[in-house]
Amino acid sequence: MAPTPTHTAAAVALAAHDSSGHLAPLTITRRSTGDDDVAIKILYCGMCHSDLHSIKNEWHNATYPMVPGHEIAGVVTEVGKNVTSFKAGDRVGVGCMVNSCQSCGSCDEDFENSCRAVIFTYNSVDRDGTVTYGGYSSSVVVHERFVVRFPDAMPLDRGAPLLCAGITVYSPMKYHGLNVPGKHVGVMGLGGLGHVAVKFAKAFGAKVTVISTSPGKKQEALDRLGADAFVVSKDAEEMKAAASTMDGIINTVSANLTLAPYMGLLKPNGKMIMVGLPTKPLEIPPFDLIIGNKTLAGSCIGGMRDTQEMINVAAKHGVTADIELVAADYVNTAMERLAKADVRYRFVIDIGNTLKNSE
Amino acid sequence: MAPTPTHTAAAVALAAHDSSGHLAPLTITRRSTGDDDVAIKILYCGMCHSDLHSIKNEWHNATYPMVPGHEIAGVVTEVGKNVTSFKAGDRVGVGCMVNSCQSCGSCDEDFENSCRAVIFTYNSVDRDGTVTYGGYSSSVVVHERFVVRFPDAMPLDRGAPLLCAGITVYSPMKYHGLNVPGKHVGVMGLGGLGHVAVKFAKAFGAKVTVISTSPGKKQEALDRLGADAFVVSKDAEEMKAAASTMDGIINTVSANLTLAPYMGLLKPNGKMIMVGLPTKPLEIPPFDLIIGNKTLAGSCIGGMRDTQEMINVAAKHGVTADIELVAADYVNTAMERLAKADVRYRFVIDIGNTLKNSE
Repeated sequence: MAPTPTHTAAAVALAAHDSSGHLAPLTITRRSTGDDDVAIKILYCGMCHSDLHSIKNEWHNATYPMVPGHEIAGVVTEVGKNVTSFKAGDRVGVGCMVNSCQSCGSCDEDFENSCRAVIFTYNSVDRDGTVTYGGYSSSVVVHERFVVRFPDAMPLDRGAPLLCAGITVYSPMKYHGLNVPGKHVGVMGLGGLGHVAVKFAKAFGAKVTVISTSPGKKQEALDRLGADAFVVSKDAEEMKAAASTMDGIINTVSANLTLAPYMGLLKPNGKMIMVGLPTKPLEIPPFDLIIGNKTLAGSCIGGMRDTQEMINVAAKHGVTADIELVAADYVNTAMERLAKADVRYRFVIDIGNTLKNSE
Repeated sequence: MAPTPTHTAAAVALAAHDSSGHLAPLTITRRSTGDDDVAIKILYCGMCHSDLHSIKNEWHNATYPMVPGHEIAGVVTEVGKNVTSFKAGDRVGVGCMVNSCQSCGSCDEDFENSCRAVIFTYNSVDRDGTVTYGGYSSSVVVHERFVVRFPDAMPLDRGAPLLCAGITVYSPMKYHGLNVPGKHVGVMGLGGLGHVAVKFAKAFGAKVTVISTSPGKKQEALDRLGADAFVVSKDAEEMKAAASTMDGIINTVSANLTLAPYMGLLKPNGKMIMVGLPTKPLEIPPFDLIIGNKTLAGSCIGGMRDTQEMINVAAKHGVTADIELVAADYVNTAMERLAKADVRYRFVIDIGNTLKNSE
């Protein structure tokens, strides 16, 4: 007998119970699987740096208990009666969003990420009034619009981080014309986002230069990730040699940097796209934008159509995240290491095999 | 007998002789008409606000005597032997540039405005070592690449300001996708650039909203220039009502403004393009760019191919500058009024009829 599509499931989760950020087990009650919903048994969940910000309430919007996690991969267990795109057993993922108004101009254009009523995967209040719980958990129930199909060639563990880190760098490359062969793309910062940006830019046929404060990352960038060049941003000679050479820069750095020297790396008509989120206002002398017709843009994840496209492109080109797979009981240690950027490049929790009492 | 293409002409000009900015007559010797050059009898020259900055050395790069003027319209008097696009008698114009390297990537793509070796129409050192003199003068000799043909329907006097003000607002509308029907375009500042921006945006089929600190400009904007709406930027209610409605904003304001409230007028994926040049660094909170995937870009005049296209489009749609035609001996008074923004919207000097001893 097929599962009743309206049963309410209990799920086992790892939650932050206060702003100490310590994660401890919690049993939560999932909403029932609605007519348009997909219920998913979670097997893997990536640990994004924003999970760390959130559980420690560094963005001053935390609701506890909080179950973080928005890089979710798993298998469909049941679907609502209106769902035609997915069936039990399908390999799927869920990223940063689980709902939106689905009727505004942004939603109509498949930019749910720009919908004013977007519901994030955790620490958000859903349309039914419940607080959303994320992927450090045994299961999740999501409207089918926000479910991504994993191509056969895409592994669930190394694919999970693409649902946040991947789309965050893929979308701006697409919309700012950096996804065509022959471009020179700079990647500022070599972390969870940056290392995926390098891989996508290479897949698009770009020359890729990593721009970093850390000379120690050079071999890693060139040999392991396949970047073509490496510029140490503190080295004035290297910066000068790279001046006016790049069509675009994906800036993944959250630190408060002086942007002007980096803008100087751009060719005329070049574009710097911010995907990191510094705490202070960006400062840019008008001349550095106007001379050479340059662009400073922001980009926030991406829409669902683009997310599916991204993971299809990734599967085709073999783009996955470099991960360190950890057990559920390692998650607090992983958070401490994440705070020190001591990971290359993404922790992924092996939910299916290690979260105790997982369904 | 045709004029000898290598004769050296004397020209009568109005020059600033020191940083007082006072303009007085000067006789200058033009370079001879080279093989690729076009010699032009100047009939009209617009007075751009940058002329005022330049003659007072406010950009700290003045060479005196300085003959300002880069909105030049007139008639061809002779051409060099290699010139095939123009002949004596043609109605033509010259804008902000008179030369460039003509061999770099930017020049190859017809973005001479982004060439590192661009030579501006005045106060610049040309490739032959001479200082360039602008259009407050009876004649000018320019490489044919930097000469623009005036369509029959384009008057020389009201067309002259388009060669700076027109291309400066046309180019960013083109390259940021605001030149298609149905867009909502905001225009910040209603001066020499802004009033032309309104006209071009209307010609493209946009809804146009003028954003200004001066409520007194509302009737003018709506009735005379044809804008669809007017927002007083100091009125919080009006700004709130216009929030998230605009696809793009052409920002012509040179004052140091807090940009964030204006960024709030943009829809998701909206773009603000700076064409004014504030003296202080722009400040923008990262959230205001990243949430809604917004863009802050700069734009500096435009390339020569686009300048010709611009004036053709303007002629087709009847776009011209609103001008106050003044005699050459009124130029110092006009400068004083320009400093007070007391002109709607461009002074144009009637060189042909009023500059004494004009050739």
